[in-house]
Amino acid sequence: MRALVKHHAGEGLALDPNRTAPEPGPRDVLIRVKKAGICGTDRHIWQWDDWAASRIPVGIVTGHEFVGTVERVGEAVSRVRPGVRVSAEGHITKGTDYNSRTGNAHIASDTKILGVDRDGVFADFVCVPEENVWPVHEKIRDEVAAVFDPLGNAVHTVMEAGVSAKSVLISGVGIIGLMAVTVAKAAGASRIFCTDVNPPRLALARRLGAVEAYDARNEGWIRDVRRQTRGEGVDVLLEMSGADAAFDQGFRALRNGGRAALLGLPAKTVNFDFNQHIIFKGCTVLGINGRRMFETWYQMEELVLSGRLELDDIITHEYPIEEYQKAFATMMSGEGIKVLMRL
Amino acid sequence: MRALVKHHAGEGLALDPNRTAPEPGPRDVLIRVKKAGICGTDRHIWQWDDWAASRIPVGIVTGHEFVGTVERVGEAVSRVRPGVRVSAEGHITKGTDYNSRTGNAHIASDTKILGVDRDGVFADFVCVPEENVWPVHEKIRDEVAAVFDPLGNAVHTVMEAGVSAKSVLISGVGIIGLMAVTVAKAAGASRIFCTDVNPPRLALARRLGAVEAYDARNEGWIRDVRRQTRGEGVDVLLEMSGADAAFDQGFRALRNGGRAALLGLPAKTVNFDFNQHIIFKGCTVLGINGRRMFETWYQMEELVLSGRLELDDIITHEYPIEEYQKAFATMMSGEGIKVLMRL
Amino acid sequence: MRALVKHHAGEGLALDPNRTAPEPGPRDVLIRVKKAGICGTDRHIWQWDDWAASRIPVGIVTGHEFVGTVERVGEAVSRVRPGVRVSAEGHITKGTDYNSRTGNAHIASDTKILGVDRDGVFADFVCVPEENVWPVHEKIRDEVAAVFDPLGNAVHTVMEAGVSAKSVLISGVGIIGLMAVTVAKAAGASRIFCTDVNPPRLALARRLGAVEAYDARNEGWIRDVRRQTRGEGVDVLLEMSGADAAFDQGFRALRNGGRAALLGLPAKTVNFDFNQHIIFKGCTVLGINGRRMFETWYQMEELVLSGRLELDDIITHEYPIEEYQKAFATMMSGEGIKVLMRL
Amino acid sequence: MRALVKHHAGEGLALDPNRTAPEPGPRDVLIRVKKAGICGTDRHIWQWDDWAASRIPVGIVTGHEFVGTVERVGEAVSRVRPGVRVSAEGHITKGTDYNSRTGNAHIASDTKILGVDRDGVFADFVCVPEENVWPVHEKIRDEVAAVFDPLGNAVHTVMEAGVSAKSVLISGVGIIGLMAVTVAKAAGASRIFCTDVNPPRLALARRLGAVEAYDARNEGWIRDVRRQTRGEGVDVLLEMSGADAAFDQGFRALRNGGRAALLGLPAKTVNFDFNQHIIFKGCTVLGINGRRMFETWYQMEELVLSGRLELDDIITHEYPIEEYQKAFATMMSGEGIKVLMRL
Repeated sequence: MRALVKHHAGEGLALDPNRTAPEPGPRDVLIRVKKAGICGTDRHIWQWDDWAASRIPVGIVTGHEFVGTVERVGEAVSRVRPGVRVSAEGHITKGTDYNSRTGNAHIASDTKILGVDRDGVFADFVCVPEENVWPVHEKIRDEVAAVFDPLGNAVHTVMEAGVSAKSVLISGVGIIGLMAVTVAKAAGASRIFCTDVNPPRLALARRLGAVEAYDARNEGWIRDVRRQTRGEGVDVLLEMSGADAAFDQGFRALRNGGRAALLGLPAKTVNFDFNQHIIFKGCTVLGINGRRMFETWYQMEELVLSGRLELDDIITHEYPIEEYQKAFATMMSGEGIKVLMRL
Repeated sequence: MRALVKHHAGEGLALDPNRTAPEPGPRDVLIRVKKAGICGTDRHIWQWDDWAASRIPVGIVTGHEFVGTVERVGEAVSRVRPGVRVSAEGHITKGTDYNSRTGNAHIASDTKILGVDRDGVFADFVCVPEENVWPVHEKIRDEVAAVFDPLGNAVHTVMEAGVSAKSVLISGVGIIGLMAVTVAKAAGASRIFCTDVNPPRLALARRLGAVEAYDARNEGWIRDVRRQTRGEGVDVLLEMSGADAAFDQGFRALRNGGRAALLGLPAKTVNFDFNQHIIFKGCTVLGINGRRMFETWYQMEELVLSGRLELDDIITHEYPIEEYQKAFATMMSGEGIKVLMRL
Repeated sequence: MRALVKHHAGEGLALDPNRTAPEPGPRDVLIRVKKAGICGTDRHIWQWDDWAASRIPVGIVTGHEFVGTVERVGEAVSRVRPGVRVSAEGHITKGTDYNSRTGNAHIASDTKILGVDRDGVFADFVCVPEENVWPVHEKIRDEVAAVFDPLGNAVHTVMEAGVSAKSVLISGVGIIGLMAVTVAKAAGASRIFCTDVNPPRLALARRLGAVEAYDARNEGWIRDVRRQTRGEGVDVLLEMSGADAAFDQGFRALRNGGRAALLGLPAKTVNFDFNQHIIFKGCTVLGINGRRMFETWYQMEELVLSGRLELDDIITHEYPIEEYQKAFATMMSGEGIKVLMRL
Repeated sequence: MRALVKHHAGEGLALDPNRTAPEPGPRDVLIRVKKAGICGTDRHIWQWDDWAASRIPVGIVTGHEFVGTVERVGEAVSRVRPGVRVSAEGHITKGTDYNSRTGNAHIASDTKILGVDRDGVFADFVCVPEENVWPVHEKIRDEVAAVFDPLGNAVHTVMEAGVSAKSVLISGVGIIGLMAVTVAKAAGASRIFCTDVNPPRLALARRLGAVEAYDARNEGWIRDVRRQTRGEGVDVLLEMSGADAAFDQGFRALRNGGRAALLGLPAKTVNFDFNQHIIFKGCTVLGINGRRMFETWYQMEELVLSGRLELDDIITHEYPIEEYQKAFATMMSGEGIKVLMRL
């Protein structure tokens, strides 16, 4: 089969036209991939930065966002059958620790990730355990199903924070931040404020429903947000940038008793004022990782079926996998937002 | 002052042109009423049914939904001043029991209600304790502020149930049920199903955002709802009819583990199947009374400011108080939905 | 193998000394049973009442409460191995519906129950899916592990209601009600009130930690409870009797805004005053079914390890399975509370 | 009246024998103080550190923990009358912001604190608004009522975190940390682990119910805690030390998906690893400030009435106010834990 492989310990990926296809174990499902999305994680793997060099095994098939069709199932599989259109949760656990057994497998201690720790989806076939498979509703298009993984990050963040009838600040409108704008609006946020340092992305955030989209470099925005929120600050902060300054500014713009959901990963430790930002204000802070299995996926399905999500301006490009270099270049230049590859 | 009074123990109300205006105590606020809404409760008082005869003191000024302007304040009042445009929470408590002291005054054990237990708002002036006053945001129109009381019932029900990214069934689309449709949609419900026995109201529910609005007399609707919800039923039930059959049908249409918020008052006890409807299904049932003081009011303000509530088709008529007989007739005939009186 | 079988459509059970042992499928675990508890459900099956006649297939092996040791595992099993001491969750689902996939398999729509819908644990061997197996902590005795199923009902009810620093009323102190007394105390209930119509059980409830244990037939107890709770009523009601009168009395003894968790199953529909008991009071009602998989099991393990549960007065008798008639007689006469059989 | 005053901008306090007693406004209550506790805050004020110098107005009467008797009430006061034994919430707000109006006055934006921002309780009389007064239950001793303020901090932290049937780590067993041990045990924590650097306090923590009390300077304790918690870590972290190292260690000892409640105030910003401690683990962090008005007070009353709190080893000394120098010396030397003064 074709597979996009991390072929050496350095920059780039290589398309192997003759990779051996994986063989499903008794509880596994073999899926023929139709479309796959390029994630920021894939970019780190391409660029071979310190994180990638320390984590990624050379020779691995990359990629974890996808939609496809069940090709074949192991002999002990009972929940899914060949021919069904599916996506899959890319976090794989043994199912034995506390979180796996209590509906919180997204924070299991033994998680292996598709395209990071084991062979991924930039290939004609991928193999995942039956438990991880998600049948795609017939009314949902392939393009949307192909990005369930990052869209699920946005849904998870928005739904854990709780945005219904609340004012919301989204700091950082990269791919997932932009998805969070349309998700938060569909999920009932009353007013959405955004910050970033990228003017075109801020403009897009506004088109997707933000009432204000500020350049974070001008700190006057905090005063403006407070002015529009009774002088108290927003009800909810969704941190999606991982930037030190965004942590500090975001909590200053959050009202006493507000909730902050953190998804963006800071590059290193943050020098943080716990007294002013959390303790005196009585705030609640939620760490967000992956997608709840599978509550987030049901919520995502409901939101897509509601017809309220606007994803067309976010899913911007699609290339055949043979043009993977162009696809990655489009994504890395910022010209594209979510870029898909077709198999 | 003018005041619409329950002048005798029988049908009707009378306009007294020379009622003595109330005198504010040290912690009270005297408010000049501008507009007031007619509630289903006022209809019971007009008709003098068993409930009204057992509860309402003859001679009382009726009415509890309103907007006005602060005229004068008692000498110990510090939180509000003359000239401010206000509405008020009509449930008045001494502030000494468990619920009053823990942010749950809406279910205090000693509640007195404006226009029911003490003089109300169908008059030039009304007097309420300072704690009950709600300053109206400058961007909110008088017509909307005048119906904060019933709109708050709808907001309270929707927000306690939690509708964000959920499928919702609203059983009963009278005035508050219709408000609940637009509130649930603005608060992020993914899909709204409604039932009632009144075709024009069902048509209006559809215009306000319901994806389906069923005549409850044809039980086939339950099968249809389940078909659209993975065969499992809706996530949330908002019971707003008080009808016995709606209790039974509503719970049958609710999925295992779903949440039901009950606002509609049955006329008497209900013969209820706790096993099938609540215990085996692991459902959660919430009794809803009044409006949370003042969380519901803040949520309502956010929802109105979001621009997403559609109330124009619900607030249908307005009359000067002198035409109160016409106003009540319009409301009681069903020709009008929410009918206001102007002072 | 030996097996206690529902051998005919009438009263009683029969011990079959030569039942063929079950054969584990690829994902199943074969367990050698050591001890098993007799449940109220088993009594219904013995007595062959209407419910049993309508639900139980003749020829089934009965029983669902047990502890044992893994004998053999199917070839696709990865989470458990032979020799491990285990109990198991007796509610078995396919794992495909909403609740099964969101950590709420205890209310799955396709649940099959051990000893009710498929062969159970009153036998030398029982077979269950790998997902249902629960390894027993080395510090927990067999007698306690054998009753994890009903103890889990009590833990589930107590933990869903939330009793920490709260006053609690437990209506009905049968086996699970008595367990709920010691569980609620260990889980932090500040004061526990009980009702029943069985004086010895009330006395035992008092020994297990109830501050008051009332004969429910004298309604004066409601006044006494309110007197001890600021005149307002208890914070939490745990309904474990299924008696009509207990529903009515229990809600009258519950404060406004209180939480009621319902586990007891009424024999038929209940004529219930939703207005007085739930809506005006703003109460929350929770239907309780089975045990959360596996949050309840972890909570139960923590509670047992805390050393605070007093189960010795509840687990009263043990017989070899050959004396099953004596075991059932001891349980059915009320002489025993929880009666075990040994294999 | 007698009053312990911050008489100059430097170390120490002075007893003024002839301070003019405060005069209650129309909504105020004048209370005759009986006993008052010395808080860590009072120690800062005595020592006149940077915080005290920047916040405390010279000339103020100090102290905020107390019990007393209502002496006189303002003319608009309706909820309390002379002769009643009371304590009071020391956080005073105008009641107009979002949090004050939604049952969260403990995090109001305009809070003034007794003995910090306005005259306090180390005096024969103190004046507080009616809303802040808390009638003391007849079964609760003066010594306990005198420390409701710090005990309330402990109760607030424990109850927000939620400890019922959970393993809990308390980092820092100063006065409030020790109170948290007995509170957590009474509130249903299954197993309590403590850390500190003070061996006598660790020994006391063990006597109060901790299963382990570690010297935090030997990091091996983290491994030991994990060994006792399935290798995963504790369910709940209560941070009561404010020490940088405790933040890092505490989160390492917390399981994925755990809850951390932060009460201890770090001296300055903390260099914090959000990725490892919060985001990857999916943890929830709660900032704790003051006491919920008045939910925390009701919970505290329930816990005291349950008879399960062990406070005798924590409230160690009492002096007449004339011996205030000895009282402060006893507290500051560490010889005493909670030291009271009698008026």
